[in-house]
Amino acid sequence: MLSRQNFRLSIFFLFFSLPSVSLWGQTSTLKVNTSRLAERMETLATFGKNAQGGNDRVAFSDYNVAALEHLKGVLATLGMASQVDAAGNLIALRPGKDNTLKPIAFGSHIDAVPNGGHYDGNVGVMGSIEVLETLTEQNIITQHPLEFIIFSNEEGAIFGSRAMAGKIDQTTLEVQTASGYTNGEGIARLGGNPEKVEEVKRSTEDVHAFLELHIEQGNRLYKNGLDIGVVEGIVGLKWWDVEITGFTNHAGTTPMNDRKDALVAAAQFVLAVNDIVTSEPGAQVGTVGRIQAFPGAPNVIPGKVITSLELRDLDSETINRFYKAIEQRAHEIGKATGTTFQFHPIDATAAPALTDIRIQNIIQNVSEQMGYTHMTLPSGAGHDAQDMAVLTPTGMIFIPSVDGISHAPEEYSTPESIAKGATVLLHSILAIDQTRFKN
Amino acid sequence: MLSRQNFRLSIFFLFFSLPSVSLWGQTSTLKVNTSRLAERMETLATFGKNAQGGNDRVAFSDYNVAALEHLKGVLATLGMASQVDAAGNLIALRPGKDNTLKPIAFGSHIDAVPNGGHYDGNVGVMGSIEVLETLTEQNIITQHPLEFIIFSNEEGAIFGSRAMAGKIDQTTLEVQTASGYTNGEGIARLGGNPEKVEEVKRSTEDVHAFLELHIEQGNRLYKNGLDIGVVEGIVGLKWWDVEITGFTNHAGTTPMNDRKDALVAAAQFVLAVNDIVTSEPGAQVGTVGRIQAFPGAPNVIPGKVITSLELRDLDSETINRFYKAIEQRAHEIGKATGTTFQFHPIDATAAPALTDIRIQNIIQNVSEQMGYTHMTLPSGAGHDAQDMAVLTPTGMIFIPSVDGISHAPEEYSTPESIAKGATVLLHSILAIDQTRFKN
Repeated sequence: MLSRQNFRLSIFFLFFSLPSVSLWGQTSTLKVNTSRLAERMETLATFGKNAQGGNDRVAFSDYNVAALEHLKGVLATLGMASQVDAAGNLIALRPGKDNTLKPIAFGSHIDAVPNGGHYDGNVGVMGSIEVLETLTEQNIITQHPLEFIIFSNEEGAIFGSRAMAGKIDQTTLEVQTASGYTNGEGIARLGGNPEKVEEVKRSTEDVHAFLELHIEQGNRLYKNGLDIGVVEGIVGLKWWDVEITGFTNHAGTTPMNDRKDALVAAAQFVLAVNDIVTSEPGAQVGTVGRIQAFPGAPNVIPGKVITSLELRDLDSETINRFYKAIEQRAHEIGKATGTTFQFHPIDATAAPALTDIRIQNIIQNVSEQMGYTHMTLPSGAGHDAQDMAVLTPTGMIFIPSVDGISHAPEEYSTPESIAKGATVLLHSILAIDQTRFKN
Repeated sequence: MLSRQNFRLSIFFLFFSLPSVSLWGQTSTLKVNTSRLAERMETLATFGKNAQGGNDRVAFSDYNVAALEHLKGVLATLGMASQVDAAGNLIALRPGKDNTLKPIAFGSHIDAVPNGGHYDGNVGVMGSIEVLETLTEQNIITQHPLEFIIFSNEEGAIFGSRAMAGKIDQTTLEVQTASGYTNGEGIARLGGNPEKVEEVKRSTEDVHAFLELHIEQGNRLYKNGLDIGVVEGIVGLKWWDVEITGFTNHAGTTPMNDRKDALVAAAQFVLAVNDIVTSEPGAQVGTVGRIQAFPGAPNVIPGKVITSLELRDLDSETINRFYKAIEQRAHEIGKATGTTFQFHPIDATAAPALTDIRIQNIIQNVSEQMGYTHMTLPSGAGHDAQDMAVLTPTGMIFIPSVDGISHAPEEYSTPESIAKGATVLLHSILAIDQTRFKN
């Protein structure tokens, strides 16, 4: 939905945004408070920290409820009132100089995967609060009002941001989540109202821009020793169930050359996915993460195997092209092994979401200005930003994940890198505050 | 335990057994009654026949109990008393001319795998009963007494024959079977006594020879249009659990060249097993029948995969040699993919059991005499004969399985081929009756 013409607009923007640098020139060396931010991160981690050192603050759990109450208190100490919308999103508004302008929104989530880490989501939430506190300390009032958002159930359903994009239906409300509660029950626990979820839907007229600070969850920034990732978009993904049918037979009495072994065909398929996806340069990925052989006994030749197939890329066309190549190779494998392949699409498709090229440029300029090294990269994981991008010019700021580890107790980012990310968020907000988006 | 010196003995035997041909020359064209045998097969099939056309007469089930009672009745009409030993084996003795001689034993089993067919085991049991009836009709009394055995729980544990070989321990008695009963409870249901299982153990002094008629369960005889398989031995097998460890990671955020995907390594392993096992001529087989990836989600790169590995051959040394080659290749795959392979042997090892070369020759000669085409082949499946081979010179007679299908409702052998097998069993018994085994 954010088309290639953004690129042309960005040329326009580069010329006309340069003067605005001077507008926040007086604060151009301002940095957030690294140790205060680190302390607040540690406090948040205590809500759900488990014996393995990970975090069990799954969406809608008691930990989630308690952490949200805690953060309401933190916001209150900054003089900010907060409220929970019908979709369970916590929202705090900071007035601007001109409150007829649309707000600049930013935020992330505080829910975790089961036995997850303490940085995914948390960095964006606590980094945003640190930005708010820094602005208040410095007596900076932006032109636009600021809107800080903690989205509900990002890990389980990208729920809160999808509600804002108008994508939540009754079925989603009834899905049971890792907490044991349905999404509907869960958002009510946070202070939402499942019957009024549709009311949180926003239009393109409601938000000036959206920014999300997040850990990379991959290893590119860390491996390259870089401070900041300028996210060019959140990749789309497609899922299939792949059913491979051979012939079940006795492993003792069936000679090797008389077999139609579905697992031998599946093995060739797994390697074909890897070969085809890596046959071209690019950031596309393909994964077979699930596999089951039937009947699944050591002494029976598998007559059937079911695997998953996932493909991700920033470009839907690329996903489709790789899928076609994989499908064709699979049928060749079928012919050679006496088996058949069937591909069943699964309803877990997400379209790629491109970030706004003008905001990419702002994040890049701000990083340069602060002396932070940076690179442009896609996000392989899903984020609330992907749904906000439907509504408003959107940008994402990544900071390094040590060793690229995520969704695990070992997930870690240094206090310094978190502070750098929050500082880039701060200056990006200030730059966007001076920017009029023409489309 | 039946060593290569049997081969030399067989030369001796060939010379000295030829005169004995004349001893059963008067009955050399005798055949069993094809239609009577087919009818009895059909009646037996009714015990446990299910809606899918298969048979659910798993060991110790009500169907098993009822079928055994039915067969006691059939034996009674032949004037034969039968009894169940402590291990649940049904045994019927037919006196010979010299009852100081050791009996010639033969038989098979009537239990099936869940939703199995109507021929595995049944052919040998009903073929044996047909042999007994034919002998009685013809007023033929053998020198040796004859001992007909229906072994208990062949499919689940090769229980009855292992009890005769002295291989049943308390653990085996306590194992739960497909019927829901433990082996101990199950044999009691058949009329056995779990506390006295050890008493059924036999020594090499107790049986003159053992013969088993069985369907091939493979496709060699049927594909080659042959009547009789002369089984040279029952292959041994070894099982391993293979644990492949990589690194679990986010499928969206981890580039293809930064993965340690245990399933990619497992796929190479499955193909390596196939490659290595087929790299030499021979009847050896290797199978990966079970596979699981952890955590097993479409959007997570598997950090661990566990598969089974089964190798079978007539020669333990061959099994070990192929295992070494597979293990070495696995470690090479591990190095190339950043994963590690661990092999855990599973306690399901069966030593190869060679049949007696003299009895192989008898079965071959009898087939020639009757004008039946034949070939020598190994049995890839386990049978009661493998444990009887420890005790006494043992032979096995195979008949064709249509399309090689077994352990399935579609399992089938024609009435004519079953009758040919029973006829070969009959004449083999008569020939063995004239044979003194020197070792």
